[in-house]
Amino acid sequence: MAHPHSEAVEDEATSERREAIVELGEALRDLVQHASATEAATADLRRVAALVRAATAPLADHPRGRTQMPSADDLLAGIRLYNPVTGAGSALAPPLHIEVVDGVVVGTCVLGLAYEGPPMYAHGGVSALLLDQLLGHVVSADGHPGLTVSLVTRYRAPVPLQTPLRLTGHVTGLNSRGAEASGIIATAADPEKALVEATASFASLRVDQAMRLFGAALHPDATDPAAAHD
Amino acid sequence: MAHPHSEAVEDEATSERREAIVELGEALRDLVQHASATEAATADLRRVAALVRAATAPLADHPRGRTQMPSADDLLAGIRLYNPVTGAGSALAPPLHIEVVDGVVVGTCVLGLAYEGPPMYAHGGVSALLLDQLLGHVVSADGHPGLTVSLVTRYRAPVPLQTPLRLTGHVTGLNSRGAEASGIIATAADPEKALVEATASFASLRVDQAMRLFGAALHPDATDPAAAHD
Repeated sequence: MAHPHSEAVEDEATSERREAIVELGEALRDLVQHASATEAATADLRRVAALVRAATAPLADHPRGRTQMPSADDLLAGIRLYNPVTGAGSALAPPLHIEVVDGVVVGTCVLGLAYEGPPMYAHGGVSALLLDQLLGHVVSADGHPGLTVSLVTRYRAPVPLQTPLRLTGHVTGLNSRGAEASGIIATAADPEKALVEATASFASLRVDQAMRLFGAALHPDATDPAAAHD
Repeated sequence: MAHPHSEAVEDEATSERREAIVELGEALRDLVQHASATEAATADLRRVAALVRAATAPLADHPRGRTQMPSADDLLAGIRLYNPVTGAGSALAPPLHIEVVDGVVVGTCVLGLAYEGPPMYAHGGVSALLLDQLLGHVVSADGHPGLTVSLVTRYRAPVPLQTPLRLTGHVTGLNSRGAEASGIIATAADPEKALVEATASFASLRVDQAMRLFGAALHPDATDPAAAHD
């Protein structure tokens, strides 16, 4: 997205790119949900696979690497279009819509059949995924952004698919490393009845820790920390 | 998939359908990963969105409902092609490949950029998702299938993307409701070093509980239990 013209022009290009990413994200989510819920004929599945491969080709021509942030994102402003839970550009995300009002974080989404674990209900791990994002959001909004240190998820009742869900949570305290929060998943129709509960604790990163973990992404010529795992 | 001919013919048709589902699943996963990792031009993103919508149309013509199991699945045989963690037909699944050898469950996968949470690393909730599936698998293989009651996930170090991962776990005990298990996520290169640890407890369902929860899926004319949420 490097651009020789004014900042205003660059902003317009970024804005247009973000809109296109959202349009593609919506189309992908619709495809993903229908693909897990179709009884189309076998020959049609193979025909669609060919169409999907053709659609992939233009995207595959210009990949970003693991240490390269998406050009349309703005990490410091919290714009992460490909976040796998909330990202409007993500094919994996429901997406979960999150807002914080008076210290309470509220998330809303509908889970399609692609998220099925037990018949007719959401996979238990998907509930943990949603709650991790929700609680990470509220501690960040409270001024204590951090990485998840622990996530304790308790399942009271199965979470129905194709049903409007309402998630709520709040910060429960601070400790020496960061903040703690708890929250629930309920249906929009019965928002007080917890189907799943979670508590999580998050650790803020010191600057040296952040540089060690994310330095390669912030400065692409730095060492890739994944090498330390080998 | 109703078929007037012999069981052998029906088996062949089911086998062919499963192969087509896997072919489509592979194409979808490739699309999903490239879509979160592309720097293709904005106009190309819009062009791909149109191609994706065209690919979706044949699938959308023949949807299954929430209470209808996929015709190619076999719940009792454990064949769940659209499982969002392990399903070879799922666009959401890495997929995680799982096997149990001598009581130890081993899972392998590589997470693409679509699973990114913090820059360059897997979303914390994705780790919980993988571990819930892994531990549910090992308790089931041990003769104690059940629904997750609790999942406690502890994060020691971030999980790198685009890196072969190795997950291991085992059953740790039985209680009055079912079985408990624990496991870790590591890299294949350093499989003893836990990046993420989890313990989970699962509850076996009594027949009456299973019928109440899943009866609508087993007998599509039964009452949809989601109605109880309204």
